[in-house]
Amino acid sequence: MAKANLFYAQSGGVTSVINASACGVIETAKKHRDKIGKVFAGRNGIIGALREELIDTYKESTKTIAQLRSTPAGAFGSCRYKLKSLDQNRNEYERLVEVFKAHNIRYFLYNGGGDSQDTANKVAQFSIEEGFPITCIGIPKTVDNDLPITDNCPGFGSVAKYVAVSIKEAGLDVESMCESSTKVFVLEVMGRHAGWIAGAAGLASEQEGDSPHIILFPEIAFNKEKFLRKVKTCVRKFGYCAVVVSEGAQYKDGKFLADAGNRDAFGHVQLGGVAPFVANMVKEALGYKYHWAVSDYLQRAARHIASATDVEQAYAVGAAGVEFALSGKNAVMPIIVRKGGKNYRWSIGEARLSDVANVEKTMPRKFISRDGFHITDAAREYFSPLIQGEDYPPYKSGIPQYARLKKVLVAKKLPAWNK
Amino acid sequence: MAKANLFYAQSGGVTSVINASACGVIETAKKHRDKIGKVFAGRNGIIGALREELIDTYKESTKTIAQLRSTPAGAFGSCRYKLKSLDQNRNEYERLVEVFKAHNIRYFLYNGGGDSQDTANKVAQFSIEEGFPITCIGIPKTVDNDLPITDNCPGFGSVAKYVAVSIKEAGLDVESMCESSTKVFVLEVMGRHAGWIAGAAGLASEQEGDSPHIILFPEIAFNKEKFLRKVKTCVRKFGYCAVVVSEGAQYKDGKFLADAGNRDAFGHVQLGGVAPFVANMVKEALGYKYHWAVSDYLQRAARHIASATDVEQAYAVGAAGVEFALSGKNAVMPIIVRKGGKNYRWSIGEARLSDVANVEKTMPRKFISRDGFHITDAAREYFSPLIQGEDYPPYKSGIPQYARLKKVLVAKKLPAWNK
Repeated sequence: MAKANLFYAQSGGVTSVINASACGVIETAKKHRDKIGKVFAGRNGIIGALREELIDTYKESTKTIAQLRSTPAGAFGSCRYKLKSLDQNRNEYERLVEVFKAHNIRYFLYNGGGDSQDTANKVAQFSIEEGFPITCIGIPKTVDNDLPITDNCPGFGSVAKYVAVSIKEAGLDVESMCESSTKVFVLEVMGRHAGWIAGAAGLASEQEGDSPHIILFPEIAFNKEKFLRKVKTCVRKFGYCAVVVSEGAQYKDGKFLADAGNRDAFGHVQLGGVAPFVANMVKEALGYKYHWAVSDYLQRAARHIASATDVEQAYAVGAAGVEFALSGKNAVMPIIVRKGGKNYRWSIGEARLSDVANVEKTMPRKFISRDGFHITDAAREYFSPLIQGEDYPPYKSGIPQYARLKKVLVAKKLPAWNK
Repeated sequence: MAKANLFYAQSGGVTSVINASACGVIETAKKHRDKIGKVFAGRNGIIGALREELIDTYKESTKTIAQLRSTPAGAFGSCRYKLKSLDQNRNEYERLVEVFKAHNIRYFLYNGGGDSQDTANKVAQFSIEEGFPITCIGIPKTVDNDLPITDNCPGFGSVAKYVAVSIKEAGLDVESMCESSTKVFVLEVMGRHAGWIAGAAGLASEQEGDSPHIILFPEIAFNKEKFLRKVKTCVRKFGYCAVVVSEGAQYKDGKFLADAGNRDAFGHVQLGGVAPFVANMVKEALGYKYHWAVSDYLQRAARHIASATDVEQAYAVGAAGVEFALSGKNAVMPIIVRKGGKNYRWSIGEARLSDVANVEKTMPRKFISRDGFHITDAAREYFSPLIQGEDYPPYKSGIPQYARLKKVLVAKKLPAWNK
C-alpha cells in the first residue's frame, strides 16, 4: 500500500509567520518519509481541496522550503471560505473526503483561527462516518491572538512587535513637531473583537510620558468625554498625545466607532477608518492639529520586523502538528504553553479542537489599566516575551528576498467540482 | 576672545535619519575644540533661537550623542515655522542675530528643506549687514527628495526603503487572499508635489506581476478611466492589484484627489486620505473588495528599516557642514554627488543656498513609464543604490532603544522674546 499523504492548507487572514508554520510542517514531514508520502498544499487554502488543486510541495527545492520560514503572507494562497454546517452543505464534506481518498490523503493539517479549527474538527468526525478516517490537526494562526487555551497565537507576536515599534517611532516624530505643528497622532491597529494588538502597542511606552499615551480597546466601552479629557491632559503634560485605536473600538451598545458596512465571507463586519474618525473628533472638540495612520495589511505582513520568538513558535506548532498526526492524535491542535519562572520559557502542549473552535479570547480586565486607557504591569509581563528577538529576512539590493514558489499542481483524478 | 559657538537647528518635517546629521555635526565639532566652543541646538528648531532656548549638547554623554545616529525623528525638536521676508518681519532677523551675539554664536547650521535653506541664506546676508557676520550652512534633509542640485536628500533613502519593503510585503498578503477576498490594495505614501517616494515603491516589483502594479504620481494627471482599466487588467492577469498612491496625486487641473483642506504654517495644503478615496473609487466602479493603508508618520519615522546608505549620507552631510563652516565657506549646503561607474559611489559636493532655496525638484518624465503607472529602468538605476544596506538600531526586550536626551538649556541672557 502506498504511503499516506498529508494535506496542508492555510486559512483566513495571513500573517508574517504562517509560512514558518508551513515550513515546519513540510520539513518535519520530510523527516518521516517512511510514514508520510507527500505533502500537498491547498492552492488558496481549503478551496484548493474542493477544486482538487493540490500543490505538490515536494516539487519545491529544499532551499525554497527553508525560505518559507522568513517569508510573510500565505505562500500557497489562503482563503476566506468557511464550510457550512454538515446539515447545510453535506456536499462539501463529501467532496473533501472524496478528494482526500483519490489522493490517498490521511492527514489534514489546517492552519488557521477559530473558524478553521471548527472545520477541521467537523472533517475529523465526518471522515470517520464516511469510513475513510482522516487525522485532522489544527495549527494555530491568528494575528488577533484570540484563540483560547494556547498562551498566545503564532502571528500575534510579530504584529505586536510591529505596532509597538511603529507607535514608538511615530511618537518620537510627533514629539519633535508638537511645539508648532501636529499635537495628536492616531494609529489604527487590527483586532476585531479583542484588544490584544492594541494592548501590545503599550509596550512602546517604557517611561512616563512615552508614546502611546492612550489605547482604545474593544473591551472598554468608548466614552467620548473621558477620552477627550485624557487627550487634553496629555497634550498639556507632554506637549502631544499619541493614540492607538483598535479597529474594534466600540460604544457601550456594541456599535463600532467606524463601521464600513461591508461583511466578509464569515459574516464579520469589515472595518477600517476608525483612525481618521477619532482624529477628526479630537480636532473638532479641541482644535489640535492631527495626523493619523492606518497600517492595515502592512502590520500583519511585516516580516521585516518579525519577532524571533514568534517565528520560532510558528515553526514549532507546524512541526508539532506533524508529530501529533504521526503519534495517533486526532482533532487536536498544538498550543504554546508558558512555563513558570523568572525567565520566559515555553513548550508545546495540546488542545482539543472542540474546545478551541469558535471561542474568542478577549483581553482580561486585569491587563487594562483602571482608567481603561493603557495596559497594566501584568499585561506587560504577558506581552513582553512575545516580541523578543529580531529575525531579519535576507536582503538583496536593499529589498527583502522572499520565497518564490513554483506551485506545481498534482494531476487531477476527479471530475470538476460543481459547488 | 572666547571661541565661537555653533548653533544647530532641525527644521520642518523630521525623518528617520535627521538625528544622524545632528550626530555628524556634534561629533565633528568636538574634533575641532580648538576652533569651536560649544554646539547649541535649538529647542524646537529655529523657535529655540528666537526664544533663546538653546540646548547645550555638550551636557549630553558621548554615548547619547552616538546613539543619535540610530534614533529617528528630531531629538532636539523641530518646527514648522518659516521666517517671513526681511521686509515683512525684520524683527525676527534682528532677534536671531541678537541671540547669536549674546551667546557668541558665529556658526549657524540649519538642517531642513528648501524653505529652511532660504532662511539660512537670508540670515547669512542679514548678519553681514548687522556687522555680526554669521557663517550659515544648510544641511539637506527631506523625505520628499525634492531639493535641487544634490543627487538625493538624506531622509529619502530610508522612507524609500520603507515603502518598497511595505508594498512588497502587503502585496504578498493580498496575493494570498485574492482568490476569495481582497483583490485591490491601496497604499498612500508621502510626497506633496513630487513622486519620488511613490516611485521608490516601484523597486518592490522585481519580476513581472510583482506588487506594486500601479503607481499614481503627482507628476502624471490622474485619469480615472485609464486607471480603472489598468486595475481591471491587473486583477484579471495577476488575480489582484496593488496600488501605491502619492498623497500629491492630482487631476489635470492641479486639484488633489483628496484635499483635507487644512494648511500648515508654510501655507501648504495638509493632505491625507487619498488611499480610501481611490479604494472606494475602485469598489464603486469594479466591485472589487479592497483594503487600504496610510502610513503617514510611520514611513518617515521608520528607523527600524532605515537604509544604511541613507544613514551614512545623513551623517556625512552633518559632518561636512562643520568642515565647510571651518574652512570659510558661507551660505552653502553640502550635497550628495553621484559618481560615474558601474558600482554606486558618492562624494560630498556643495551648492549655494541661493540656488537651492525654494526650488522643487520633481521626478523627470523619463523615470516614469510610458503609460504613467510605473517606473522605468532609468528610475531603478537612480533609486536602487539609495535603499541599499540595512542599519538596524539596537534592541532591548524587543523594543528599539533610541536616544533619550537631557536637553539642558543654556542660561538666558536676554529679555524674553515678544514676537
